[in-house]
Amino acid sequence: MADAMRYTVYRGTFVQLPRLNSSSAKPELVRTQGVLWVSSEDARIRGYDWQINDDASFQSFLSSQGWNDADVTVVESNDEQNEFFFPGFVDTHIHAPQYPNLGLFGSKGLLSWLNEYTFPMEASFGSKSDPHNKDNDPKHTSPESLRAYDEVVAKTLAHGTTCASYFATIHVPATNALAALCHKHGQRAFIGRVCMDNPDQCPSYYIDQTADEGLNATIRTIDYIKKLDPNGTLLNPIVTPRFAPSCSNHSLDGLGKLAASHDPPLWIQTHISENLDEIDLVQQLFPESSSYADVYDKAGLLTKRTILAHGVHLTKDEITLIRERGSKVAHCPSSNSALCSGLAPVRFMLDQGVTVGLGTDVAGGYSPSILEVARQASLVSRVVQYSAEYQALMGNKTSDGSEKLLVDEALYLATRGGAAVVDMADDIGGFDRGMIWDAQLIRLGTSVKGTTTSPLGVASLTDRAVQSGPVGNIDLFGNETWQEQIQKWMWSGDDRNVKNVWVQGRLVHSKDE
Amino acid sequence: MADAMRYTVYRGTFVQLPRLNSSSAKPELVRTQGVLWVSSEDARIRGYDWQINDDASFQSFLSSQGWNDADVTVVESNDEQNEFFFPGFVDTHIHAPQYPNLGLFGSKGLLSWLNEYTFPMEASFGSKSDPHNKDNDPKHTSPESLRAYDEVVAKTLAHGTTCASYFATIHVPATNALAALCHKHGQRAFIGRVCMDNPDQCPSYYIDQTADEGLNATIRTIDYIKKLDPNGTLLNPIVTPRFAPSCSNHSLDGLGKLAASHDPPLWIQTHISENLDEIDLVQQLFPESSSYADVYDKAGLLTKRTILAHGVHLTKDEITLIRERGSKVAHCPSSNSALCSGLAPVRFMLDQGVTVGLGTDVAGGYSPSILEVARQASLVSRVVQYSAEYQALMGNKTSDGSEKLLVDEALYLATRGGAAVVDMADDIGGFDRGMIWDAQLIRLGTSVKGTTTSPLGVASLTDRAVQSGPVGNIDLFGNETWQEQIQKWMWSGDDRNVKNVWVQGRLVHSKDE
Repeated sequence: MADAMRYTVYRGTFVQLPRLNSSSAKPELVRTQGVLWVSSEDARIRGYDWQINDDASFQSFLSSQGWNDADVTVVESNDEQNEFFFPGFVDTHIHAPQYPNLGLFGSKGLLSWLNEYTFPMEASFGSKSDPHNKDNDPKHTSPESLRAYDEVVAKTLAHGTTCASYFATIHVPATNALAALCHKHGQRAFIGRVCMDNPDQCPSYYIDQTADEGLNATIRTIDYIKKLDPNGTLLNPIVTPRFAPSCSNHSLDGLGKLAASHDPPLWIQTHISENLDEIDLVQQLFPESSSYADVYDKAGLLTKRTILAHGVHLTKDEITLIRERGSKVAHCPSSNSALCSGLAPVRFMLDQGVTVGLGTDVAGGYSPSILEVARQASLVSRVVQYSAEYQALMGNKTSDGSEKLLVDEALYLATRGGAAVVDMADDIGGFDRGMIWDAQLIRLGTSVKGTTTSPLGVASLTDRAVQSGPVGNIDLFGNETWQEQIQKWMWSGDDRNVKNVWVQGRLVHSKDE
Repeated sequence: MADAMRYTVYRGTFVQLPRLNSSSAKPELVRTQGVLWVSSEDARIRGYDWQINDDASFQSFLSSQGWNDADVTVVESNDEQNEFFFPGFVDTHIHAPQYPNLGLFGSKGLLSWLNEYTFPMEASFGSKSDPHNKDNDPKHTSPESLRAYDEVVAKTLAHGTTCASYFATIHVPATNALAALCHKHGQRAFIGRVCMDNPDQCPSYYIDQTADEGLNATIRTIDYIKKLDPNGTLLNPIVTPRFAPSCSNHSLDGLGKLAASHDPPLWIQTHISENLDEIDLVQQLFPESSSYADVYDKAGLLTKRTILAHGVHLTKDEITLIRERGSKVAHCPSSNSALCSGLAPVRFMLDQGVTVGLGTDVAGGYSPSILEVARQASLVSRVVQYSAEYQALMGNKTSDGSEKLLVDEALYLATRGGAAVVDMADDIGGFDRGMIWDAQLIRLGTSVKGTTTSPLGVASLTDRAVQSGPVGNIDLFGNETWQEQIQKWMWSGDDRNVKNVWVQGRLVHSKDE
């Protein structure tokens, strides 16, 4: 028959956050059980039916669609193992070349960390045989660099990240290699060659020689990525001025124009207001601008497709400007705490109408896991009320506790929020009809059980080991509601609970059993 | 020969924090390689030799001791797997019965969380057949409660916690069961029956009927534990008024006297200054006391063997009082953030001469892992400078960054600090001669390697899988110093990296390979 094998039917339990109309609304987790089918043609969800809850109704469903068992691929979640399908995570801010430095951010703040750890590591991604960086061939990248890129893509996929917005380095071959590796692994990705040409702020060993050289090199990576994936199915280039201090005005302007010259315009990513010293520096370097955000705005870099990482210390006016431009914020709490940057007022930004997603910010952040970032976002939101800066921002009103990000909200940011930040809210982040199947199958495991009676009436460790038991650190005791199971997942889960990961309908990660 | 089989020789790599003479000094990790031997008689370290670095010198060493290979048990760390022996973690504050609630702390703060989650769970540890709680037999505890206690002991051991100071519940049989399970699993533990007799602050379904009934019930658990482990080799009772609001003055006074009536005095644990509402409540309930700390001091509860959990909002005067009494603080950052309690000024307390250790505070804290708590302690210390309360405590001086807990300091708190908090600084927390062998063998795994060349020159996922590779989430790239390896462990490690755990010289946990 015509439709044969053109669908994959996912059957079982699905958990997601419904899409909100406004960033200030409060999301609530929804669980449905039944079937959802995905076209193999374009990997999009063509329908679902939450009434199909037993084998008989499943068979009727298949018949009603005109499908035989053999005509479709069926992928089931295992209820006994407390498995469920969940939208893939979106990492809106990650520095791929810094992955080998994970956990090594030393004892100082942002600016010294850049010089001590970050720039030397990134510089090592240059091709030694091509110091002037004139070629485009990803193979002219060192084995060590390729290994690091291979590892960061594999690792983020294993943690359920189906889409990532990567900063690469200034090097064209290595940036192209990162794109090629995402393509190979099947991860959805935005790939940005880092632009930095200000000789006063960049190390002499790691800098674009001129703004124009940087622009040209960027164009070469854009061309490579567009050739590799002409429809942008998985990969898209993203214009990436490192941050205002590293760039000349000429470079910032040129990059703004470059992004706007494409139709549709290219994505843009950079950093903003991460650290107080950095903000002082920007004020000093750009005296003609009224604020950090204004520097980017003057260069045409605040667009609907702009991802601004951090935004820890944004003023109310800057938040308004960002909202007006439709630009997005990548909240990176693990990094902000680890680098002593500060406590970002996320709920306030959301309430002001700014779109926010989560970023690992590897390797300012110490973990490649967006689930870990969701935890940290929740933790930080629970203490931001004690920040003097936050209290001032709120007009010194006593907190009513509304700044707290609950589990549902943190997971919304990790999925729908991230999808909106990369301007793909219609395509990924949930299981709506028409969306792309970017998803993960989460396994929580079975409840803690004690069947064999010891002198104390307790199963011994050995007894428990022969049962399937909990997976990773999630201990279910059997009396949890499904919402509480999700809470336990958010607070105790890790990559052991990520059984399968799909991107664009393709299975791209399976946990070894 | 006389000495045959009386020693276990640990051979390989040892990492630890040297003991400091003052709590304000800065610890630094030390790595040594060689052998260390432990007497099987009392599980104490009898000596070490950091010159024994090859097989020949090891054989000479054995001969010089008069030992044959067959006379001693040798346990080796595997250098290729980047294994090292590390002191066991001390969890200075954990509520065993709350373990099934891990990750479920809802949306509100401390006081409502107690009523919604904590008290109902703890109440379920009562024996239904013995509502008046007159018997001592641990077997009269429900299978569900025993299962929860069995699990929390097994789980904390699996995360490297060799010593824990447990809050149990008000129930004598269940408290005794917790002691029996620690004994069975071989975990060093302080076991506290929780005292709470204030009818205005405790739920009617979960309360000591009178202060005297609470005191008597406590004495029954003390007797049970002293009978189970007469020398206190592994187990010791700990006097546990829940916190000031739950207790009458009569109860607080009685518990102070009870602790002092033993020789040496009993250990004491309670909570202090966790939450601003709680502090207001204490002021209201104890108008005759000048501060929260003073409530305990008046009852004789501030001793050298007192563990005070949290101390988030202590005043300078209270910190001075605690230092003068020699009482200790259990810092619980995961819980303090999760329950919106606040940001504790740890470095300030240390600088004031207070002894501080780490506590998971399960289930206000969301993780049973002290390594996770060390991470959170470090993160919180990196943003406490932004707290209005902290700024006031420091006289509004600008931070010089010294409040930051580096990796070495966080791991010191997790081991030596915790040992000092439970008044066992001479016995555990390090590898000094004469100390007890409470230790863990940490496995970091091998470096990320790519041996097979793909079209991109990168090893594929499958190629990597057949090599031993990284363990858990620690990715070593082969160019890390040993200190950086430890940093990666602290920031990315989990229970997968805990290969073996010993308490009192006994192997009590081995990771399934």
